Amino acid sequence: MQDVLKHIDDNVDSRLEELIEWVRIPSVSTDPLHKDDVRTAAEHLVRDLKTSGITKSSIVETDGHPAVFGEMKGPKGSPTVLFYGHYDVQPADPLNEWDSPPFEPEIRDGKLYGRGVADDKGQVHTHLKAVESILKTAAELPLTVKFIIEGEEETGSTHLEELILTNKERLACDVVVISDSPMFSEESPSICVGLRGLAYGEVIVRGPKQDLHSGAFGGGVANPANVLSKILAGLHDDRGMVTVPGFYDDVVALTEAQGTAIRSLPFDEEKWLELTGSPSTTGEEGYSTLERIWARPTLDINGMKSGYTGEGAKTIIPAVAKAKLSARLVANQDPDVIIDLLEKHVRALAPPTVEVDFIRHHGGKPYLGPTDHPAFEAARRALKVGFECDPVEIREGGTIPVVSTFSEVLGVPCILMGFGLPDQNIHGPNENLRVNCYRGGTRSIAAFLYQLAETMGR
Amino acid sequence: MQDVLKHIDDNVDSRLEELIEWVRIPSVSTDPLHKDDVRTAAEHLVRDLKTSGITKSSIVETDGHPAVFGEMKGPKGSPTVLFYGHYDVQPADPLNEWDSPPFEPEIRDGKLYGRGVADDKGQVHTHLKAVESILKTAAELPLTVKFIIEGEEETGSTHLEELILTNKERLACDVVVISDSPMFSEESPSICVGLRGLAYGEVIVRGPKQDLHSGAFGGGVANPANVLSKILAGLHDDRGMVTVPGFYDDVVALTEAQGTAIRSLPFDEEKWLELTGSPSTTGEEGYSTLERIWARPTLDINGMKSGYTGEGAKTIIPAVAKAKLSARLVANQDPDVIIDLLEKHVRALAPPTVEVDFIRHHGGKPYLGPTDHPAFEAARRALKVGFECDPVEIREGGTIPVVSTFSEVLGVPCILMGFGLPDQNIHGPNENLRVNCYRGGTRSIAAFLYQLAETMGR
Repeated sequence: MQDVLKHIDDNVDSRLEELIEWVRIPSVSTDPLHKDDVRTAAEHLVRDLKTSGITKSSIVETDGHPAVFGEMKGPKGSPTVLFYGHYDVQPADPLNEWDSPPFEPEIRDGKLYGRGVADDKGQVHTHLKAVESILKTAAELPLTVKFIIEGEEETGSTHLEELILTNKERLACDVVVISDSPMFSEESPSICVGLRGLAYGEVIVRGPKQDLHSGAFGGGVANPANVLSKILAGLHDDRGMVTVPGFYDDVVALTEAQGTAIRSLPFDEEKWLELTGSPSTTGEEGYSTLERIWARPTLDINGMKSGYTGEGAKTIIPAVAKAKLSARLVANQDPDVIIDLLEKHVRALAPPTVEVDFIRHHGGKPYLGPTDHPAFEAARRALKVGFECDPVEIREGGTIPVVSTFSEVLGVPCILMGFGLPDQNIHGPNENLRVNCYRGGTRSIAAFLYQLAETMGR
Repeated sequence: MQDVLKHIDDNVDSRLEELIEWVRIPSVSTDPLHKDDVRTAAEHLVRDLKTSGITKSSIVETDGHPAVFGEMKGPKGSPTVLFYGHYDVQPADPLNEWDSPPFEPEIRDGKLYGRGVADDKGQVHTHLKAVESILKTAAELPLTVKFIIEGEEETGSTHLEELILTNKERLACDVVVISDSPMFSEESPSICVGLRGLAYGEVIVRGPKQDLHSGAFGGGVANPANVLSKILAGLHDDRGMVTVPGFYDDVVALTEAQGTAIRSLPFDEEKWLELTGSPSTTGEEGYSTLERIWARPTLDINGMKSGYTGEGAKTIIPAVAKAKLSARLVANQDPDVIIDLLEKHVRALAPPTVEVDFIRHHGGKPYLGPTDHPAFEAARRALKVGFECDPVEIREGGTIPVVSTFSEVLGVPCILMGFGLPDQNIHGPNENLRVNCYRGGTRSIAAFLYQLAETMGR
């Protein structure tokens, strides 16, 4: 394996040049004007896969932007790794906030700048180049690798679930690897073992048939905005806990060890707070900030509207008051169960003096990796080899529905090891990928394939 | 006085024709396109006052639309009545919902239809014509009458307070009479003895410096919308009472007799509820609907806004959450005191995890007439003469700030006796004034002048 790692180290510069060529293609999936660029980037990727030695690679059409599949067999009986990533990118606006043009990537101060260098082209590239270095050094892969790289991640992965379901056999594997998330810090290569899910609903409280004069009618009928406030206030207790009955029933609690591990991470809370601009951190009693965001469910109002919201004063009793509400879920909360409980609780809090509608929006399941699975041990060892320092286990507060889709449809664990950094500015101007992380990531992926072949080889 | 009443009865038709000529002038004060029409209506009024015998009448300029003053002296030592009203009208939109053109008044089924027939030209007309009938029948008025008729009531009476203050001597009187409110029903000519006041504020809760991703940050910092809901929910208890400390301290409670009188009015609650469209009536425990609207203070949310309010789902923690709040006040609550208490309570409810701004908007004082003043007895007797049935005492839930201004600046009681009906559609299409009410109103005003001269004559 040392030869493989040396090959990777020796070729970082030339491969960054290859990556730059790919990043030059503005594959902005959300913008119809870039439709052809998206396909060009897919075709470029197929060529790059083939160049890297993954000869069985091709475009797979969807009803939207195409996906790219690839496969390279390892020894008979060896395990299979499926790499997932995406080659589409976010729009680059606002252009004037970039220090160098988003689609003319350049390296400055040890970082590659350009739209998509971190999210996700640069990270997908580490997968390809790890495989290439093995093939160029060792002639054979230690196991089978497969690729599914979509072009619609930034538009909500519209056709991905369908793609996975209809290609279940072709994508069959022992573990899915995704590199589309940041490391905890440059000194802490990370395995993300948990993602929160999402349940989203909307409460609509209706009172009078139209806005009423608050003088002529105020005091005689229920004010929907007053009622909605009471309902919303009834969703949390004074300790910051959600009061929806049954809400916590399926929550997998943090073990003592997991809590201690999270609390011992070198988390700069002050810097994080500065990033938010809020006066202070707060949340569910008894947990640290990272525990609250990573491992505890929440219930947030995402929007509210009622009555008059323009300048100055208008004296009405609003006819309607609305709120959008969403819960971030942790394993093993089920979005369908939670949205049922939420609706039930909201209706229980509503008095008969108003009418209440409850609308459900799309949700997503939480994910908690089976960290005792041998693939996780392989990932830990691989990151230590790749970055030459100890990795940490982290979680993400956000939701990536495709992770639980892969996990459930293919019946395998997902290893999320990303190589970006918290200041990578994905979706913003000056998106960047540290060259050291690109190198360490490629090394880690190569090491992972060897480690996994060793621990899971039959 | 019987001759006067007969003169009024005999001239109803011809006077309605005169009124129609005035209503034809579209004196829409809110619309700059009608600026000249407003002045034309004022000039028309001055001519009409003079024709009615109130020879000392003239336009009084303001920085906005002009007002019209009038005066006709009675016997030396007799009391003085000041009539207040307005000659400007609401816009007539939506025009297509009128059964006859708003500025081409016509009489159908015993009602005069047209914009301003009830609010307030038709009611001002009763004042003029009562005086005219006395002068034509008795040669001399029993007391001195003065008029102040403004052209900015529908735009918030912008210059009225200034006008009253700078013309305090000229407007000096013993009682102010205003006819700009509906009667309880056609069978119940009414004296409105109470108006609610208004205190208006706006709460702005700020958390993060911009909307945050609810996954990446949810659980770590306070959500301003969640916090605002708690604050707003903390303004009322479960019995519908306002929980702002000190809120009820200055409330003049209904006497047993006043409560009984209100509850014994022939109030059709079901019909009223149908008008609102709400599922049921509700409010402060222990009071009937009319008591709640007329004689108890309220605190209503008039508007709320936070975060994402468009279609579908957006998963953010909003940076800001706002609510507009207003209290309807009853005697002797002071708007300045109440807004202080409200701000103090809101701030007390806000946690240190957010920042709170509190903005004050313009308020208005409540009014409660001194019903044991002889002018009220005179009004009761006058209405009985005018409508030939027993009058009732009512209140209004809304606010007419000018009433407390008159009362305080001139140091006299205001008698509110209006001759419209609850279905008069002021501000809406098909505004109307019942001919019988116009007749009864004119008779009542004439009778009132005699009654007042008798009870207050020196």
